[in-house]
This record gives sequence, structure tokens and C-alpha cells, in this order.
Amino acid sequence: MRLKLCNIVPGEEHPVTSKMCFHMVQPKGIFHFLIVSGIAIMLAACNAAKAPQKPGKVRLAKIVVDSAQLENYKTLLKEEIEASIAKEAGVLTLYAVFEKERPTHLTILEIYATEEAYQAHLKTTHFLKYKNGTAHMVRELELVETDPLVPELKIK
Amino acid sequence: MRLKLCNIVPGEEHPVTSKMCFHMVQPKGIFHFLIVSGIAIMLAACNAAKAPQKPGKVRLAKIVVDSAQLENYKTLLKEEIEASIAKEAGVLTLYAVFEKERPTHLTILEIYATEEAYQAHLKTTHFLKYKNGTAHMVRELELVETDPLVPELKIK
Repeated sequence: MRLKLCNIVPGEEHPVTSKMCFHMVQPKGIFHFLIVSGIAIMLAACNAAKAPQKPGKVRLAKIVVDSAQLENYKTLLKEEIEASIAKEAGVLTLYAVFEKERPTHLTILEIYATEEAYQAHLKTTHFLKYKNGTAHMVRELELVETDPLVPELKIK
Repeated sequence: MRLKLCNIVPGEEHPVTSKMCFHMVQPKGIFHFLIVSGIAIMLAACNAAKAPQKPGKVRLAKIVVDSAQLENYKTLLKEEIEASIAKEAGVLTLYAVFEKERPTHLTILEIYATEEAYQAHLKTTHFLKYKNGTAHMVRELELVETDPLVPELKIK
């Protein structure tokens, strides 16, 4: 919408108000475009964050820990999980659960975007710190490759 | 910003242009308020969807299925998982994985918002359909209560 404040030549004085006349071009079109674009981008970003992502590697790690080292082990594992999730886009989850009746037995549901993301994960300093730091605490380790039934499922 | 098109009484003719004068009050303040409010609400909704939720019940279901019934079993389990996730706010995930080397062995990471949500889940028609429909297909079932290490962790 173009809006003229008066109908005389821009730059001349208004005959009644003695104020300088000018054309005021309201950039509403651009403004609306920017607003609508901004909203669209935000919604897209919001949806992208929720969009189903079919993972390339889903695994169970079944681990038995030395009971004398359980708390130390948990501290190191928690640190490693939090660093992996925060720093590695390809690590989709490392959901670790300890059995209530056998607290030294844990299972980790490991979901990686791709095999490459997993291979990169193995080389990170936070993973190596965990791996080397807990080597003497781990009594048993079984890595079980799996096929997820609903691969894109999330945790609400 | 209030913008007067001319400085004479609204409703009278402009002395030069002979056009009707009027005050045009641009509702920019309201417009901006609505835009900013809208953006804030969208961001809040987006963040709420991602907000960490500490679950009240986290369990592993370890199941062995009759190999002759595996595909039928998968069909019924998938239907039950998708219905539970869609219809029950308190069912946070039912992430089922089948072992590649022993395809009849599966583990389900079950996360419920609360014990009450789990009890309600047991009474739903979709759960009962799965339970009754697969009873003759399940060879072994072990339900393992667990303590998650990072309870609020999600799947990206």
C-alpha cells in the first residue's frame, strides 16, 4: 500500500500546514513478507526438530559392572552420555537403564543416525575417556545389533 | 505511531485536494503486540514439546516369540505401539527392537509418565487386543523394572 500524505509535489510546503510534504511509502508488503517468512521458518524449524528420523544403527549394549565400582561407573557413563548427546548430532540416544533387582546389570538402547555417526562416536575424546576409564569396572559386555519395529519412534 | 493525513478536522474536505480528510490511526502497536505474542506462543509450544519430562516408570520387556508366528506377532505389536503412542499421553515410548542374530528375541524399552499411566494403559482396548491376540505366540516374557541413568533423555 502506497500512502501519500498530501497530493502536491514531494519536497514542497503543504499550503495549509506549512509543513514539508513527502511521500511516505509504507513498506507493508515487505514487512508482511518478512513476518510471514519468519513464521514459516520458525514452524519449519519446530517441525524439523520433531520430524521422524529413521536411524541407521540401533543396538542394545548389555553390561554387567563390578559392584564395588558401580557408583564410579555410573558417574563416568552419565558424563559420556551427556557429552555424546550434546556434541554429536548423529548420536540420537543412549538410554541406559539399571535393573532394580540386579543393580549391576544395565542395558543401553543406543541409537545412531548412521553407521558413520557411530564410527565417529568411537573416536571422540568423551567416549575414549569413558571406555578407558571404565575398562577395569566392566565384568561383562554384550553388544546386540537389532532391527527396531518402529524405527522413527521417539520418547515424548 | 499515530499518523494524521492532514491537520484539519476529520470528516472535512481538504482545502487543496478536496478529498475527505481523516485520521488514520495505524494499529501498529496492536499489530506488533500480536506478532510478538504469536511468536512467543509458538516458541513456547515448540519448547514445551521438547521440555524434559522425568518418567515415573521405566521398564524392559524381554520377549521370545514363536518363530512360526513372528510376522503376525510383529503386526499386532506395531499396531498396539502406534495406538498407545497416539492415544495415551502417559505412554512416553514403547521402543521395540528385534535381535538381528536371534530374530525371535525382542526387547521393548517401555517408558510411562507415571505408574497410573501404566495401569490405565493395561485397560485400553488396543493393549487388550494385543495381549489377547498374541498370548499364544509368546514363548517367554520377562518384565524387568529399571532405574534410568538419565531419566529425561530423549531420542533426537
